Order: sequence, then structure tokens, then C-alpha cells
Amino acid sequence: MPRVSVVMGSDSDLKVMSEALTALESLDISYEVVISSAHRTPQETGELARSAPQRGIEVIIAGAGAAAHLAGSIAALTPLPVIGVPLSGSALGGVDALYSTVQMPRGIPVATVAVDGAHNAAVLAAQVIGVKDPEVRKKVEEYKKELGTKVKKRNEELQQVGYRQYLQKK
Amino acid sequence: MPRVSVVMGSDSDLKVMSEALTALESLDISYEVVISSAHRTPQETGELARSAPQRGIEVIIAGAGAAAHLAGSIAALTPLPVIGVPLSGSALGGVDALYSTVQMPRGIPVATVAVDGAHNAAVLAAQVIGVKDPEVRKKVEEYKKELGTKVKKRNEELQQVGYRQYLQKK
Amino acid sequence: MPRVSVVMGSDSDLKVMSEALTALESLDISYEVVISSAHRTPQETGELARSAPQRGIEVIIAGAGAAAHLAGSIAALTPLPVIGVPLSGSALGGVDALYSTVQMPRGIPVATVAVDGAHNAAVLAAQVIGVKDPEVRKKVEEYKKELGTKVKKRNEELQQVGYRQYLQKK
Amino acid sequence: MPRVSVVMGSDSDLKVMSEALTALESLDISYEVVISSAHRTPQETGELARSAPQRGIEVIIAGAGAAAHLAGSIAALTPLPVIGVPLSGSALGGVDALYSTVQMPRGIPVATVAVDGAHNAAVLAAQVIGVKDPEVRKKVEEYKKELGTKVKKRNEELQQVGYRQYLQKK
Amino acid sequence: MPRVSVVMGSDSDLKVMSEALTALESLDISYEVVISSAHRTPQETGELARSAPQRGIEVIIAGAGAAAHLAGSIAALTPLPVIGVPLSGSALGGVDALYSTVQMPRGIPVATVAVDGAHNAAVLAAQVIGVKDPEVRKKVEEYKKELGTKVKKRNEELQQVGYRQYLQKK
Amino acid sequence: MPRVSVVMGSDSDLKVMSEALTALESLDISYEVVISSAHRTPQETGELARSAPQRGIEVIIAGAGAAAHLAGSIAALTPLPVIGVPLSGSALGGVDALYSTVQMPRGIPVATVAVDGAHNAAVLAAQVIGVKDPEVRKKVEEYKKELGTKVKKRNEELQQVGYRQYLQKK
Amino acid sequence: MPRVSVVMGSDSDLKVMSEALTALESLDISYEVVISSAHRTPQETGELARSAPQRGIEVIIAGAGAAAHLAGSIAALTPLPVIGVPLSGSALGGVDALYSTVQMPRGIPVATVAVDGAHNAAVLAAQVIGVKDPEVRKKVEEYKKELGTKVKKRNEELQQVGYRQYLQKK
Amino acid sequence: MPRVSVVMGSDSDLKVMSEALTALESLDISYEVVISSAHRTPQETGELARSAPQRGIEVIIAGAGAAAHLAGSIAALTPLPVIGVPLSGSALGGVDALYSTVQMPRGIPVATVAVDGAHNAAVLAAQVIGVKDPEVRKKVEEYKKELGTKVKKRNEELQQVGYRQYLQKK
Repeated sequence: MPRVSVVMGSDSDLKVMSEALTALESLDISYEVVISSAHRTPQETGELARSAPQRGIEVIIAGAGAAAHLAGSIAALTPLPVIGVPLSGSALGGVDALYSTVQMPRGIPVATVAVDGAHNAAVLAAQVIGVKDPEVRKKVEEYKKELGTKVKKRNEELQQVGYRQYLQKK
Repeated sequence: MPRVSVVMGSDSDLKVMSEALTALESLDISYEVVISSAHRTPQETGELARSAPQRGIEVIIAGAGAAAHLAGSIAALTPLPVIGVPLSGSALGGVDALYSTVQMPRGIPVATVAVDGAHNAAVLAAQVIGVKDPEVRKKVEEYKKELGTKVKKRNEELQQVGYRQYLQKK
Repeated sequence: MPRVSVVMGSDSDLKVMSEALTALESLDISYEVVISSAHRTPQETGELARSAPQRGIEVIIAGAGAAAHLAGSIAALTPLPVIGVPLSGSALGGVDALYSTVQMPRGIPVATVAVDGAHNAAVLAAQVIGVKDPEVRKKVEEYKKELGTKVKKRNEELQQVGYRQYLQKK
Repeated sequence: MPRVSVVMGSDSDLKVMSEALTALESLDISYEVVISSAHRTPQETGELARSAPQRGIEVIIAGAGAAAHLAGSIAALTPLPVIGVPLSGSALGGVDALYSTVQMPRGIPVATVAVDGAHNAAVLAAQVIGVKDPEVRKKVEEYKKELGTKVKKRNEELQQVGYRQYLQKK
Repeated sequence: MPRVSVVMGSDSDLKVMSEALTALESLDISYEVVISSAHRTPQETGELARSAPQRGIEVIIAGAGAAAHLAGSIAALTPLPVIGVPLSGSALGGVDALYSTVQMPRGIPVATVAVDGAHNAAVLAAQVIGVKDPEVRKKVEEYKKELGTKVKKRNEELQQVGYRQYLQKK
Repeated sequence: MPRVSVVMGSDSDLKVMSEALTALESLDISYEVVISSAHRTPQETGELARSAPQRGIEVIIAGAGAAAHLAGSIAALTPLPVIGVPLSGSALGGVDALYSTVQMPRGIPVATVAVDGAHNAAVLAAQVIGVKDPEVRKKVEEYKKELGTKVKKRNEELQQVGYRQYLQKK
Repeated sequence: MPRVSVVMGSDSDLKVMSEALTALESLDISYEVVISSAHRTPQETGELARSAPQRGIEVIIAGAGAAAHLAGSIAALTPLPVIGVPLSGSALGGVDALYSTVQMPRGIPVATVAVDGAHNAAVLAAQVIGVKDPEVRKKVEEYKKELGTKVKKRNEELQQVGYRQYLQKK
Repeated sequence: MPRVSVVMGSDSDLKVMSEALTALESLDISYEVVISSAHRTPQETGELARSAPQRGIEVIIAGAGAAAHLAGSIAALTPLPVIGVPLSGSALGGVDALYSTVQMPRGIPVATVAVDGAHNAAVLAAQVIGVKDPEVRKKVEEYKKELGTKVKKRNEELQQVGYRQYLQKK
């Protein structure tokens, strides 16, 4: 049974949003992935939002670009935390999606992450579930330790080979 | 029976949106005015959008600020033309509402007017109805003539009294 | 006899604006397409705007980039609804065209759609004509249903093949 | 024992951030409130972040303006979900705080709410805790119902008295 | 006979634009001042632009806010240099007027000055006329010398009284 | 003897600025072209600005990107009209150069054209010189007529071949 | 003998810039304060920049608004570090001054601080002088300790009185 | 013993930041280069900042993109001057990094250079060290002279070959 529902308004968003899916997999968190548009399939999107709690969903991640209403319109219909991923595809380069996702009115928050930040949306979902589930909390802690380890390894390599050689290898 | 439905998400929007109402009155176009939020009363908003055509509504005007989803979420549910008025109340000063209103995805347009442009939303509604109704078309033509007449009168006064006196009188 | 006049300031705008033409064709709405510039052929543009009503035009769509004055200068000369399409070609990436199109002064609205939103301009024109013409209204309703159907089909495919395979097929 | 830690970088942020505190109170969620700066008291801020889980804190809310690093620097040190509130006090009006809060790098998300959205940060914290605690979930559901009820009441009043009288009463 | 024509779209622009008039007076340059709107009195504006050369006008200054088309629509109709003053009155604070004035398409330049820079528009007009008229050139040179003298005097005063007393006197 | 001095801060600006040179050639206006930086060769730039009037220069065109001070620092040292061309090369895409060029303080205007608008800078220079020189005025008039003629020819072609064929030919 | 030269383009900048002066005083660093404009008194500004090293100046602080060229034009003429303070007075609210100050071309850096950040410019000047002078380094360290102490005291007070009483006292 | 510490948050920043390293080399200033993240290795970054003075470091250069907290979080922990380089990699194109780096709160300045301005960060570091070390001061003076010489040489070549041939050679 999925714990996280990852929704996007169009299949053109799937490439960026798939980073959330691979991150959830590596954090061992079950998920569903759905294409459903706030504007083109409003009924299906409403259904998805309203049924989420009884289906066992704990967090919803919604990614959309331009006038990105998807996360907000889902947040209107569920008591679950909704994480919004503003996507950068439009001519205005993502600032439109960011404002449309984050500037939600009093009472209906969307937990917004960086433009195209699908990976971080998954990490945030894990942190939210980790409030309840110590297994997931531990996964998050390991994940963060690994993040630091990678940086340190790269720094060690830089110290050994020098910046000129480091740049050539990449 | 109202021909235009003027919707806003909060009664704090009423002061600006009332400029649409007085403009519709002066253009002799019947209207209804409703407070209904895309996020706080999504069901009522959906009802309003879906029932509009059979209730004789010809155009919908929707005003909202910040992550302004109201016009878009109505447009998703009706074949009627929807005019969006981005409102400037938030900390970002209206550019958030503008992007959230105008940058609609393929297939679901919102006819967006200027930030806080409620008066112009009414004029645009009249122009739309004027496509069908010669009486309203004539009203629009008279209105536009008057606009020009006022500018010309002010210019005449400026020519007579000079700019210093003109500024003092205001 | 054309019902919609699609105007653009330069033939470099034709590629984006042609999306309005193909959309109008698929909605069975007759149109004319004209290159006429607010600044380089002001007289021809004025003529086009002033003659539109008696030529049977019901809606005007105008696309322009940068300091995009075309839609506004047409709106100044006609009681018809004018739909503006801000184009993104300039160094400032379309935000200049958006502001120049949407921020119209009191009395002269332009119904603005998204940056490069030529397709949506056609849909909006159909919605406007649909206020008068039930045939066109029905076309709009079918079009919107189809929009939803496509999203649902894509979602079904995603559910069947999974996101990894879905991404590879595209 | 507090479940939410509300942190801000300066006592000049307290007025806006107190909206989070009153909201948490009305949702019956225990909290602590701390002034601690990412830059002026980095050690205390680090301590606070690192000790949060064993002190029983479930969610951290951090509010800051300008180059708002507080939420991010806390998120770096804890596996808990961190909610960031960008504040609008600076000369750039909050867009600096928004970008500094939301554009976090891969691996360290901050759940960002609207500029000055302290109230919504509290609601989001409740939604997060609600994933674990059915009591809090119920509180959130009641809160959202009430939001809708208020809008409906205001609309009823508007229908009864008309917009002119409604505006005068406010 | 006026050498400079100062045009604005609305009498609400007169206060800022009057700074151009007083500057022209102090530079001994004759002028006319006209209220004429690109959108509300397009014919009068066109007339004014087209007749300018034969009426002896040498430079046109046009001030407008929001979707500021005035300078551009005049520039379309005259071989004279046109100076544009973007005005800051709208909800977007002048950046809309700036983009609408300066981002003119190939072939139709507008010599744009700072937002609300009516004073500088007059100085620029004098510099343009000074290309032809040595009297005006001399006036410009004296004006610029005076600018420097004032700065030097203020600095001398600051050196004498110190910054604390200087600030109190203001 | 050159009438227009075209200055740029770096030879990386030459490609865009050469559009001013070819335009001046086609308008039969003599010019000089100089690489001189406000910051790297301030003395040479100062010399160039100060000597311009006695060398017979009538207008100065200055192109620069990023913190574009070149036009302003020249304008500080000459009574001639200075035309600024903001260039788009930097990471901020030209909005930095635009603000740095156009937002000049009281007393020192720069006649700013569009971002990368070197061609229009030349046309504006011709319009300025045309105030004095009827030959150049006539050139400007012919140039503008030609602009219109080209648009009309393209429109005629579009009418003949239709938009699909027109697009393929380009 | 002054170690820091604090320059501003206009006496209207003195109020904000005086925060740098009081900060330098409290850090026991001698300074001079000068009004000198990049555009209105370019010669005096150049003199000031060129003579700074032999006059014993170690750091220059320059504050300016709008198209803020002052810091950059000083940096062009001296090998000393130049700290730029973008000021927020213009219609564009300081983003123009920020871009004009920070986006300096290759080779001529300006050490830019926050919009209206005159106080921080003084702290940065002290940090620069502290590289050389252990007395000043110690002052900086004490200053930073004090910053933290103040935050901690305020937090203690908040813990004692609670947020409601804390807010009333302010 | 290194005098400058060049820090970056990720090895993806190394390519841009290496421009600082080559510039430091050509100015004969010793340096260390470290990958250390404010968020992923906060402890290591803190260590690096705190130990810098006793390790003989005189200036720290920190480059980061997006919500660029690196320079600020280092500045919080050291009395040394910290130079921040905002990097342009994110979807928002560097304006996020600029705001996050420059808009530091009262008391904790970051000396910010242009977006992607790593080269200039090195020059600024040299200017800071030059306050103390006449050898480095001389290097800076020579460097600046060379900058001017290059511009003059390019201008000479342009004068000799003309702009058409100059452009072809590049």
C-alpha cells in the first residue's frame, strides 16, 4: 500500500518528477504515481485528494509548472500535508510556478520545495513520515550522513589530485 | 437574471472588485456577486462554475490575490469565458497573482486583465457580451467615446488654465 | 467570412501564432491571418481594427513581443474583445511582452493569455463566440472533454507500464 | 513537552511569527518559541537543531528575512521536517527571503510557505503531526471546515445586504 | 512657437510630468503640454504626432504608466526623436512602464529615461536641441556646472558642521 | 569627420554593437567606433567624452553589459546627447545592464534603447541629427517608410501562399 | 588621519550612510565622510579615488542609489578595496542599485553589501583592516560576541515573559 | 601557508570557481581550495571557518548557488573578511544565489561580487591583502594597468582593421 502519492499535471513533467520516485525507492518508501491535472481532469484530481487518507496515503507530492495550481487544489481537499514542486518549463522559467505554488492563502499551506526540486520533495516526505515511523527516520539519518560522506570524499580527491586534474576527469 | 457572475475568494477583495460591479451597472449589465474560495470552499466554487451556463451566466469574472487559483479553477469547469483579475494584496505586490492567473496551461485559458483591473474586467465582459447583443455593443461604443471625451475636456482645461493652476485645483 | 482576425506584428511571430490558427481550424472557426505592426504599419493596423466589426469579425487575437503594443493599440480602436498573446522572443524573455500586454489602462482591456499562449488564445476566442453560438459552445465542450480524456489515457498507460518504461518510450 | 519548535532570528520577527503561535494554540499543539540567529548565535542554533529530536520536538518552524538562512541551517542539522517562513522586512520586500528559504540544494529540503505565512506554517505543522496523531488530524479537519463555514457566512451576508452596505460595515 | 511637445496620457500624470515643464522653463526652451492618450484618444494622439514637425516641434516627450504605449505609438508616426518617461503609478511599481517604453521593436526607438525621470527628459531634450542650437548647448553646459557646484557646496557644509548637525538641519 | 561616436567597453560587445554601425552606414551618417571601458580605461573614456564636441561629434552611442556604467560615465562629461545600449551578456540576462543604464540620477540622462537594441540606437542618433539636418531627417523618413513597406510585402505574401507554406519557406 | 573614506553621491543618502559612520566610531576606526557624485562631480570623485592610498586611506565605502555607479567608478581608479552600499530610494526599490553595484565587469570588483546595508559596510571595512591590524581584529571579535549576547538576552527575556507580554513591551 | 581559502559547496561549482584559483596564481597569492557544504558538511565547514585565522588565512572566498548560504554561514564564524560568489546554476538563473549571498543581516556582512564573478573575488582578495602587504598592492596595480593596456591594444587593432575584419578574426 503506497504511503506517498506523487501527482503531476502532465506526462511532460514525468522526467523531472521521476527524481522523486527514485529517491522514494532508495528511501524504501512505497508510493503511487499519477498523472492528473487540476484543470483538465479536476474531478479525478479531487477524487484522488479526497480519497487519499482512507487509502493510507500519508503525504502527497504534487509537481506542476506555469500557473501551478495542482498542489494548492489538492491541499484544498485533504488534511494531509501536501508538498509542491514548482516546475521550470514555461517561458517565465519557473518563477511563475514558484509563486503559484508557495503563495497560498491563509489556511491552505503547500510545503514548497525548490524549482524542479523533485528529489528534495521525496526527502521531505520521508522526514514527514519519519515523525511517525522510526524506521524511516533512521533512513533519513543515513541518507544525510551519506550526503556528507560524498562531499568529504570529493574534497579528499580534490586535495590529492589538485583542481586542474580534478576538472579534467569530470 | 444575471448575465455576469463576479466571484472573489475573500471579502477582503470586495473593495477592489466592487469597481467591476459599478462598471457593470453603468453598462446596464445584470450580474451576481459571490464570495467563494477555490481553496476554502472548493465544492461551492465548483458548483457555481458548473451551474453557470444553465443559470444564464454568459461570462464569469474572478478576482483573487497571491497564488490566485480562483479564475483558473473555475475555467477548468465551464465552457464560458472566464476573466481573471489578479489582486495586489500580498507581500509580493501582485506579480504573484498575475503569474498565477495568466500562465494557464494549454487548453484552459483565463482572460487576464491588469493587476487590480476590476473595472476593465467589467468592460471586457461587456465586449464579450457585445459580440452577441447589439444593445451592449452600443453601450461599449458609447462608453469608449466618453472615455475620449473626458480626456479631451481635461486637455482643454489644461490649455486654458496652464499646468500650475491645473495642479492646484486637483 | 472570417469570425476571428489573428494579427501579428512581424512574420517572425508566425511560428508561435500558427498554433492559434491550427486550433481555430480544429474548432471549425473561420479566421483571417494578417501581419500588421502597431509601429511599422500603424495606419494599416488602425484600418484593420476599425473595419473589423463591419467585416463580421467577432474577436481579434493579437500577438507581439517586447514592448508589445499591438493588442492594446487595436483595442483602442474597436468595441470587439481583443485577446493578447505576449511573445517571448526578446532578451528579457517575455516578461516585457506580458507587462506591455496585460497592464492596460482603465477603459481599454486586453484579454491576456500566457506568454506564447497562442493555442489558448484560440480556445478563448471560441469560448467568447460560444456565448452567442451554441455550435461553437458545443465544440468547446467537446474540446475540453478530449483534454481530460488524453490525460486519463496517459495516466492509464503510466499505470500499466510504470514510469521507467514510460519515459523511455517518449 | 513541546511538539513544535518555533525559531526566529531576531525579536523584530516576533510580531509576524506570533501568528504561528496563536494558530498552534488554537490547534491545541504544544510549542516552544526561541530567538536564535543562524549568523549571530550559530552555536545556540546548532544546539537547538541537534537536540530537537531527543527533546521530543516533531516539527521545527523557522522564520527569517533577507538572506534567510535560518531554516536551511537548521535543516542541515536535523532529520526533522523544517518549515521555513520567509519574512518581508527587507528593502527587497521578501523575494530575497523567499529565494533564500526555498531554493535549498539537493538533499536538504525546507518546506517553504508564503512570504509572511506564519499562520500557514502552523497549519502545515499540524498536518505533519496529523500523519501520526489522529487527534491532531481531526483538529485539522475541523479547522478546514471552519474556514469554509466562514467564507459561506460572509457570502450569505453579502447576498442579504448587497455589496454597498457590506463595504460600509467593514 | 513651442520646440518641445510634452504629452501625457492622463491628468493624473501631470504632477510628475510637470518636473519636465519647470526644467524646460529654467533652460529657456519653449514647450507645449498636452493630455492625449494612446488608447482613449488615439486619433488626437496620432494627429499630434504627425503634425509635430510642421508645427516646429523638435523633440517630443511622452510620459505614461503601466502598459505605457504612448511614447511608442507617437514614435511610430514621426521622424522626430521621442523621449519616453515611464511612470510608477501602477501596482507593479513602474517596471511595467519601463519595459513597455524601452523594449521597442527594431526601427522605432524611444529614448527612455529613468522611471519618473521627467526632469531628466527635459535635460535630454535640451541636449538634443543643443546639437543644433549653440545657445541651448551653452544652457546645458551651465546647468551641468551648477549641478556640480551644488554637490560641492553641500560637501563643504558637511565638512564644516559634521554629519550629525547636517542631518538635524535637514 | 565622424558625427556619431560609437563606444563599447569590450570587444566582446562588438558583434551586437556592429548593428549600430551598419545602420549608420545605411543612413549615410559618418561615425567612429571605439573600444574604451569606463572601468578599465577610465582616462581614455573621459578624454573621448570631453573632446567629443570639439571633434564635431553630435551624438554618442555607448553599449555595455552587466553593471553598465559606460553610457552614464560618458554622459557625466559631455553636453552631447548620449544613447545607451544595455547588453544582455551577463548571467542576469540584461536586466542588470538595463537598470544600470536607464536609472540615471537627476541631471544626467542617458537616452536608453532596448536591451541589445544597437540598431535602434543608430536610428535614434539619426533622429537626433535630423533635428538639425534636413538631409538626415529625409533619410529617417525614407527608412521608416521602408519599414512599413517590408511589413506590407510580407503580409501580401502570407495572403497569397497561406501560413503553412509561408512557414516552410523560411 | 582617516583610515576609511565614506563617500556618497548626494546628501539625501546621508541618513542611511550615517549608520556606517556611527558603526566605525563604535569600532574606533577613523574615517572621512564626503559627498561626491560619480556623475555630477566626476573630477572630484576621481581625485578622491586616486589620492586615497597616499592619504592613508585603507578602505573606501561608497553608497549610491538607482544606476549606482559611484562605487564602481571609484574602484576603477584605485587599488584599494571598495565596498559598495546599494541604496533603495528609487522607484524600483533598490534592485536597480544592487545590480548596478554588484555586477561589475572582470577586473574591477566592488565588495557589495545588502541594500541599505551601511552598517555592515563599516563592519566589513573593519574586517578588512583587521587583516592587518590586530587591535581592529579584536574589536571585530568583541563586536560579534556582543551581537550574539544581545540575541541571547532577548531570548532569555522572551522565555521569562512569554511572547504576548514581550510584544506589548516593544 | 595559504593566505586565501577558496571554499565551494559542491564539485559542480569547481569549474567557475577555478577562475578564482588561476587569478590568485597569477597574482602570486597562496591559497587552499576546499569542497565543503554549509548544509551537507556543516561541521567541517564550521571547523574550516573557525580555524582559518590561526591557520594564517587572511581572506575567505566562498562560492555557492541557489539558496547560497555558504558565504554567510562562514562569515558567522570568523572575524576574517568573507567574499561571496553567487553562482548561476539553478533554474532561477543566479538571482536566488545573489539575494541569498548579499542580503546578509546586520552585523554579518558578506563582500559579494557579481554572479559567477569568481575571477573578481580573487582580485578583491588581493586588494584586501594589499591593504597590509605592499608587494600584493603592487601586483594589483600592475594587474589593473594591464587590464587597461589590453583594452587599448584591442582598440588600436579595431582602428587599423575596421570592425568587419575584426569580427571575422574572432
